[in-house]
Amino acid sequence: MAAPKIAVIGAGAWGTALACSSARAGADVTLWMRTPVPPGTRRLPRLPDVELPENVTITGEMPEDADLTLMVVPVQTLRTMGEKLRGNSPLIACCKGLEHDSSALPLTMLAETQPHRARGVLSGPNFAIEVAQGLPAAATVAAEDLDQARAFVGLLSTPAFRLYASDDPLGVQIASAAKNVIAIGAGIAIGAGLGENARAALITRAIAEIGRLSAAMGGRATTISGLSGLGDLILTCTGRGSRNYSLGLALGTGENLADILRHRSTVAEGVATAPALLRLAQRHGVDMPIVETVTGLLAGDFDPARARDLLLDRPPATE
Amino acid sequence: MAAPKIAVIGAGAWGTALACSSARAGADVTLWMRTPVPPGTRRLPRLPDVELPENVTITGEMPEDADLTLMVVPVQTLRTMGEKLRGNSPLIACCKGLEHDSSALPLTMLAETQPHRARGVLSGPNFAIEVAQGLPAAATVAAEDLDQARAFVGLLSTPAFRLYASDDPLGVQIASAAKNVIAIGAGIAIGAGLGENARAALITRAIAEIGRLSAAMGGRATTISGLSGLGDLILTCTGRGSRNYSLGLALGTGENLADILRHRSTVAEGVATAPALLRLAQRHGVDMPIVETVTGLLAGDFDPARARDLLLDRPPATE
Repeated sequence: MAAPKIAVIGAGAWGTALACSSARAGADVTLWMRTPVPPGTRRLPRLPDVELPENVTITGEMPEDADLTLMVVPVQTLRTMGEKLRGNSPLIACCKGLEHDSSALPLTMLAETQPHRARGVLSGPNFAIEVAQGLPAAATVAAEDLDQARAFVGLLSTPAFRLYASDDPLGVQIASAAKNVIAIGAGIAIGAGLGENARAALITRAIAEIGRLSAAMGGRATTISGLSGLGDLILTCTGRGSRNYSLGLALGTGENLADILRHRSTVAEGVATAPALLRLAQRHGVDMPIVETVTGLLAGDFDPARARDLLLDRPPATE
Repeated sequence: MAAPKIAVIGAGAWGTALACSSARAGADVTLWMRTPVPPGTRRLPRLPDVELPENVTITGEMPEDADLTLMVVPVQTLRTMGEKLRGNSPLIACCKGLEHDSSALPLTMLAETQPHRARGVLSGPNFAIEVAQGLPAAATVAAEDLDQARAFVGLLSTPAFRLYASDDPLGVQIASAAKNVIAIGAGIAIGAGLGENARAALITRAIAEIGRLSAAMGGRATTISGLSGLGDLILTCTGRGSRNYSLGLALGTGENLADILRHRSTVAEGVATAPALLRLAQRHGVDMPIVETVTGLLAGDFDPARARDLLLDRPPATE
């Protein structure tokens, strides 16, 4: 049997890592990147410590004959990239966030731009560098049709990268989008000196409010307490490697948002997603005090004294 | 109205912190410690950076006229201390674990030694030093009777130390006991070089297995996803300040358990609790693969190659 062909669209850190892992799963991988690299390049700028496996081919041409295509571009460019896609392979969204202007979820954007393709979403507690290095990791792959999700799992699993099928793509996408916003809040709490107790309380409260939105939209509670919800939230809010957390950390110590963004070449999805998530919650009549506070802190000049609002906003009397 | 009298039994780091916080809540606090300190001492050995508030009195005599007594001794000594108590005040267990030989929960030990007193349990994501310094923190106070729990909350709350009443003391105690065992596993995962992705996946799986035991014993699912469950688990598995996590970390790097314990003056509750928790789970017919693996790793000579068992044991096919 010929090796399956997997196209990876986007060669940031996570696209590069998924290309490495997919190649180890036995696929012939085509890795599309916007910025050309010299022929023979086997180490890419976003993960320079990792050498690409032999069966990864870098290209600047949009692949069209893949058996599966992984969309690993920033959420704010996903719609545009969806319009440029060629071929008919199933698509897996591997990005986390909401479209800023519309609050659209990744699979909604793919449905609108590529309506005839099968679709799924991959998400979990996965720092790119560790997956690229072959360290053990787990993630959820969700599709409306559980058999479809299982087929994706079959194509992408390796002994180190353990994937679990789910038929709750909505819950997975809500949890993934929210965790980058919450991570900014967790960073602010630590940056402003509130301490680790405060951060742990914040994450706990966040899981509750993410669950409320997901439930209001039809997602399942178990998804939020799984790898793509709780698991990813823990990693992003405590790991040094998270862009959103480190952005919050800088904000919390008093740095200016514009200055922070000016000095970064990578994307912190939570900045654009925060207001889109808040609008989505309001549309569904769901109270998300932490998301509301983070959105407010991002929009205005940050006042460290307001960091406590992350915790003290409308607490329940019992739990 | 006279200030309430609160007795704190045990002047380890957490007892010292709770004495400081209770004093700030307006109580006259008597802090009992086994080892005498010189008259006039205002900084105790376990939290030398914190000066005790004026209304904390240190004593070597067991207090007998308190309005409320906080039991902040190691779990393995709680029964003995319960037998020595004098007076009739309500008791709050502020320790986390199971009695090694019997798998008894803290409130069970207090019920057996002080059957006529009202009882509750306090637990949450609380590093002692941060609470002592007055940084914001949250915790759950649970009693069978919710009004009793609310009365405890009223006595102990401060603007910085935010307490929430619960009537699920069973769930709180199960979660608290398990988190120290899981923290050892999380430390092993990091110490053995499995990475942060692996740790996040481990914590996620742990929440599921703790929830199964609690449910089998009659606890509520929401307790496990609250401050004393998820919140405390996150803090203990990711914060540098946890004794159980750091013990796991040392084990994971190949240090010998006996050597680690020999060089410590503090108690890592998870070591004694792990086998007791496993027996409790077996008694209730509940599968706890992570607790089982940690117990095995603690009992035998640690083989770093087995660290992966923490993650790979009997995974579900879907989530």
